Amino acid sequence: MDETTSFFESAPLLKDADNITSKLTQFIDQNSSSLSGSSGPRRVVCVTSGGTTVPLEQRCVRYIDNFSSGHRGATSTEYFLKSGYSVIFLNRRGTCQPYCRSLPDDPLLECFELTNDSCIQVQESHSEAVKTAIREHHAAVSGGLLLKLPFTTIFEYLQILRLIATSMKILGANGMFYLAAAVSDFYVPWDSMAVHKIQSASGPLDMRLAQVPKMLSVLRKEWAPTAFCVSFKLETDKEILLEKADKALKRYKMHAVVANELSTRKELVILVTDTAKVSVYRENHNSDVESPLIKLLVDKHSTFIKNT
Amino acid sequence: MDETTSFFESAPLLKDADNITSKLTQFIDQNSSSLSGSSGPRRVVCVTSGGTTVPLEQRCVRYIDNFSSGHRGATSTEYFLKSGYSVIFLNRRGTCQPYCRSLPDDPLLECFELTNDSCIQVQESHSEAVKTAIREHHAAVSGGLLLKLPFTTIFEYLQILRLIATSMKILGANGMFYLAAAVSDFYVPWDSMAVHKIQSASGPLDMRLAQVPKMLSVLRKEWAPTAFCVSFKLETDKEILLEKADKALKRYKMHAVVANELSTRKELVILVTDTAKVSVYRENHNSDVESPLIKLLVDKHSTFIKNT
Repeated sequence: MDETTSFFESAPLLKDADNITSKLTQFIDQNSSSLSGSSGPRRVVCVTSGGTTVPLEQRCVRYIDNFSSGHRGATSTEYFLKSGYSVIFLNRRGTCQPYCRSLPDDPLLECFELTNDSCIQVQESHSEAVKTAIREHHAAVSGGLLLKLPFTTIFEYLQILRLIATSMKILGANGMFYLAAAVSDFYVPWDSMAVHKIQSASGPLDMRLAQVPKMLSVLRKEWAPTAFCVSFKLETDKEILLEKADKALKRYKMHAVVANELSTRKELVILVTDTAKVSVYRENHNSDVESPLIKLLVDKHSTFIKNT
Repeated sequence: MDETTSFFESAPLLKDADNITSKLTQFIDQNSSSLSGSSGPRRVVCVTSGGTTVPLEQRCVRYIDNFSSGHRGATSTEYFLKSGYSVIFLNRRGTCQPYCRSLPDDPLLECFELTNDSCIQVQESHSEAVKTAIREHHAAVSGGLLLKLPFTTIFEYLQILRLIATSMKILGANGMFYLAAAVSDFYVPWDSMAVHKIQSASGPLDMRLAQVPKMLSVLRKEWAPTAFCVSFKLETDKEILLEKADKALKRYKMHAVVANELSTRKELVILVTDTAKVSVYRENHNSDVESPLIKLLVDKHSTFIKNT
């Protein structure tokens, strides 16, 4: 645990921590008070999404980033909401948001136009997608079913994740963690980081990056010992993918690991558990692999709750 | 020039190069045919904006990124258009776009709502900002005055910049380069790059990054020898800022260098030329430092054209 302690102790203080905590408390209160409601217990899942950054300089000009569009996390959030879960969406700033997948990159400039009498009008071809995005998003947020918390750096990500786990403890087995974010494996410890922009005059740049402590262990053991935990393993080399997923399952005592390969990740994932490796395919080109995946996980979560 | 040649030879091929070239040819054709028009010669500026990324793996999961919101480039584009220039806006995907500065991060989800009869409606508080963004943006693009070309990696950025410079040659002194993008100083040469995701099991990661060849020299000497060239120098340490700006001016034979410090860059820039260092301040809290800066540069560009 020493590595973990020193990671958090040397990390820059999370701005806005009080505000985040009070949002979380309110969200969990609302959702746990419906625990005894007639509709049965409400389940809450924390979906993490997008890549974390690792600053290379304290006054950050350069950083290492992990590729992730946030598509997986945003899509999964939609299916969890559809399955009756409430969702805490811990997402990288600027990545894909729930219900916005079928929109162009820059919806405001690409979907709208001004009419002759200077009114804003959505273009016919985007009309349904835009309406759906606005309607579903507002319904989820204002209904208290979706709480969105943004992060950028790995320091923010892990500190907020810890706050979420602490707030969710009260939910016991009804809580789930669905850790789809692409978390950096390497970082520059804050206190050994250059204060100013690294100068380029003096030849090649040699860098030594430390390993980020394996927080999945800490999450399972300390932060969220009673929740159902699902992590992700993404590789570009499919030869080593299943072996690494299996290792992660055992090492971090996850309840399930979703294994996916970069080039086929939208068509196929493999759900690795103690008892089986299940290939999950999307039904067709117009459907999402997240639809059968979330169904399967909801079932496993139900069994987990029953057995607790 | 050897470094430059090997950079381009080892770079991954630019996708979509033909399409970009044909867009550029059409844009320059339109704008140079109005050269002999009664309104006097039309000037074209290439504004570069946002940071470039450097992939660390060929199947890119991790990359080094340079911080830049793209605010400077987007704002400057607006003032150049206002001054009668046509603008080629070479911008990092997802960064700030012209006329969108006063909008929230996620305009679609934050500015709009559905009415009871399921129509899309912009919220009163954002109404003017949204209308202005859509109106001005469409007017510039459909009027053939603004061409937007996106990039992500340093390989894309430099290859597209070269295409732009080649197309703009015909404009002679009427062309300007305003290089506000935050370009990586270091990179991993494509052929020495890991093909697969770097594994984290084996302790700390040591990396050696090569210097990106100084393309400003190549731009001035070979790609755009007759254009007016302005580069930027951003530092976090103000002690070394002016010295470095001065060095860049002389070394790369720029016509002007805009020096700015990270923490005060929205209030103050210093325009460094052969003859003077001029501090340029914004007028007040509600105005942009780019307004006086572009005025000054347009004047210098006029003098440059006269003297050519």
